[in-house]
Amino acid sequence: MENVYAVKGNIIFTPDLGKYSIFENSYIIIENKSVKGVYEKLPEKFKDIIVKDYGNSLIIPGFVDLHLHAPQFANLGLGLDKELMPWLETYTFPEEKKYSDLVYAKKVYSSLIKELWKFGTTRSVIFATLHKESSKMLMDMFNISGLSAYVGKVNMDRNSPNFLIETTENSLKDTEEILIEYSNKYDLVKPIITPRFVPTCTEELMYGLGKLAEKYNTKIQSHLCENKDEIAFVKELHPRSKNYARVYYETGLLRQFSTCMAHCVHLKEDEIALMAKKKIFAVHCANSNNNLSSGIAPIRKLIDRGIPVALGSDISGGHSLSMINTMVSTAQVSNLNYAVKNRAEKPLNTAEIFYLATKGGGKFFGKVGSFEEGYEFDALIIDDSTLPIVKELTLEERLQKFIYTGDDRNIKIRYVAGKEVSEPTF
Amino acid sequence: MENVYAVKGNIIFTPDLGKYSIFENSYIIIENKSVKGVYEKLPEKFKDIIVKDYGNSLIIPGFVDLHLHAPQFANLGLGLDKELMPWLETYTFPEEKKYSDLVYAKKVYSSLIKELWKFGTTRSVIFATLHKESSKMLMDMFNISGLSAYVGKVNMDRNSPNFLIETTENSLKDTEEILIEYSNKYDLVKPIITPRFVPTCTEELMYGLGKLAEKYNTKIQSHLCENKDEIAFVKELHPRSKNYARVYYETGLLRQFSTCMAHCVHLKEDEIALMAKKKIFAVHCANSNNNLSSGIAPIRKLIDRGIPVALGSDISGGHSLSMINTMVSTAQVSNLNYAVKNRAEKPLNTAEIFYLATKGGGKFFGKVGSFEEGYEFDALIIDDSTLPIVKELTLEERLQKFIYTGDDRNIKIRYVAGKEVSEPTF
Repeated sequence: MENVYAVKGNIIFTPDLGKYSIFENSYIIIENKSVKGVYEKLPEKFKDIIVKDYGNSLIIPGFVDLHLHAPQFANLGLGLDKELMPWLETYTFPEEKKYSDLVYAKKVYSSLIKELWKFGTTRSVIFATLHKESSKMLMDMFNISGLSAYVGKVNMDRNSPNFLIETTENSLKDTEEILIEYSNKYDLVKPIITPRFVPTCTEELMYGLGKLAEKYNTKIQSHLCENKDEIAFVKELHPRSKNYARVYYETGLLRQFSTCMAHCVHLKEDEIALMAKKKIFAVHCANSNNNLSSGIAPIRKLIDRGIPVALGSDISGGHSLSMINTMVSTAQVSNLNYAVKNRAEKPLNTAEIFYLATKGGGKFFGKVGSFEEGYEFDALIIDDSTLPIVKELTLEERLQKFIYTGDDRNIKIRYVAGKEVSEPTF
Repeated sequence: MENVYAVKGNIIFTPDLGKYSIFENSYIIIENKSVKGVYEKLPEKFKDIIVKDYGNSLIIPGFVDLHLHAPQFANLGLGLDKELMPWLETYTFPEEKKYSDLVYAKKVYSSLIKELWKFGTTRSVIFATLHKESSKMLMDMFNISGLSAYVGKVNMDRNSPNFLIETTENSLKDTEEILIEYSNKYDLVKPIITPRFVPTCTEELMYGLGKLAEKYNTKIQSHLCENKDEIAFVKELHPRSKNYARVYYETGLLRQFSTCMAHCVHLKEDEIALMAKKKIFAVHCANSNNNLSSGIAPIRKLIDRGIPVALGSDISGGHSLSMINTMVSTAQVSNLNYAVKNRAEKPLNTAEIFYLATKGGGKFFGKVGSFEEGYEFDALIIDDSTLPIVKELTLEERLQKFIYTGDDRNIKIRYVAGKEVSEPTF
């Protein structure tokens, strides 16, 4: 029974969309990094293992954030009065320029990783900047922290300011260097191929990145159909492509079950069908879509069509790294989608959104985001005793209350892949 | 120079919609309960007064919440998967029934007032329940706390469950008793006439309440055009009235500059004109409108038409008492209103929303919500030094960062009408 232990408490997770599995005052047994099982009573053969008893706390899967921009952490909460394209030029690009400076990068990235830890985000998928060295450093820092992440050095070789652009050749060369050095360096931290978005990437670059993804069997992330002006610009740049998603498809960037696309607010029917067929993750970024006036993504429809959906904080288009904040925002825009579309698409309920924030995004990492057997044990211990609870609540209501009214103060302990992770001390 | 003192720090307020007045490292001089002036240097004649130096903190007006349901605090964050009418029946009415019990009421109301204090809401306009005794108790408790509030015993004499309904006669009698006893009892806490909404109030009751408002010169609050089913129900109940607002108008409940109406999501042209003419406050409840799928209120249009607009947390349709949370939600739905209406109505910027959360709602109380001369000194001392700020920010950016990423931990001191208010100790 080496490397076997149990945690005890009120266990809640969602093996299927919208369906809670709830075990009151029960045990999760963990062997090495993964869940062996959930038990209401500790089975006899495990009677001698260490049990970490969390009393009346809730035990839930760690949160998964499938889209965020690490350097934009410095701009968090600022400048949210513009749409995407002018916002990029005014706030984002000038900030990202600074990440050639490793000292500045380290300062911001330390702060970011601490905040991710604080908010219980155990897994994230991250855009760094085009700078090779600070992107590598970010991977090294994540590895030290114990949190899991895919980190992408950004590629951009056109339509970018002259202080933030690469040649196609260097962009591919630097990316390959990272893939060689980092693909197998760490267990929980991996590189990901990251063309910023079609407007800033030549066809030659995208094609080259698709080849690299195939060669190194690497995952890919980018942006898709966030804003109407952006979509019009893509149409102008690629008049022969049927739509925005097809540009990625034609350059080999939509890899079966291995690509995630942030936003997907204004997808056309052909794009939905293509994403469903290739099982491309749509990363819903409700806060960012609200803050940058991008619009309301039809998430219910995407789910019903079989597209894997996850949630993203998308800082700093989003203003909060908190996935519970992101979940509430997701619920709200889902309700508004229902209201403004004459009640055509049913809103997402809390259990569905909880699934998206855990197992929905966790799938991108493998067996992550659930307490089913074989799942990597990422968990949060939630102490809601300090919330103003004035009457008896069910466990489901306690979870809902934490999501809607709690914050980082309620997250007492974090586990990633079977290990308790303490606050990073960069 | 008795009763004169100064506070020192970085002062930000909005005398006009969307226009910040910013005084770095400056003084506000307070005499008795009101502001005498804001000075960059302490004038010679005030050289001997006490100066409370808050260093690098921000000093902003206290927040004003013009719509919330005190008893629903017990349901905060729960049951947000229904629309208005079924939500009332399932969650709200059964909870409100309990407030005939003063012990239970005291427990919840203590918790509520502490939370309002915590989040820096110095003034609020509140629905209690139909119960006379616990409504009086809530006023007494507010008075003890030092926070300012209008508190309304709710009136409802039709279309309500049999455990939560009054006769018309008793409803009017109890209301008048409260008006007699409480209208002049406290400086900062006042009763307000509170017909729940048209569906639960007979014409006779509304007419009687209108008479009482006139007799005692009392302010009035209610709900208006929150949800499409509610509006259809009002139409059914009052087929001869031109619209929902006209029912209130015809029964004497739209008093010049003295009535506030929560929601106003689906106003018709005639209703907008009527509210503008009578200067009826529209209380925008973004979180609640999102949570209960009510829709997007056209706030820019209401402002442009000359209707006074304020913000409301509307707990527990809203899930948060925090006015900064409410402000972010207000910004987001304003952006979505812009996005879904083909960019027709310009979104509200942060300075405009800050005005709505301070002076916009403060007007309902008189000279409140600003640091202009003669305004009652309600203020919050904001320490943002614990926020992850990684680069130099302007004062305006620091305020924006607090609104988007801060929380109650950043609010260090609260003043109401010239007095520092410490945490309630019920």
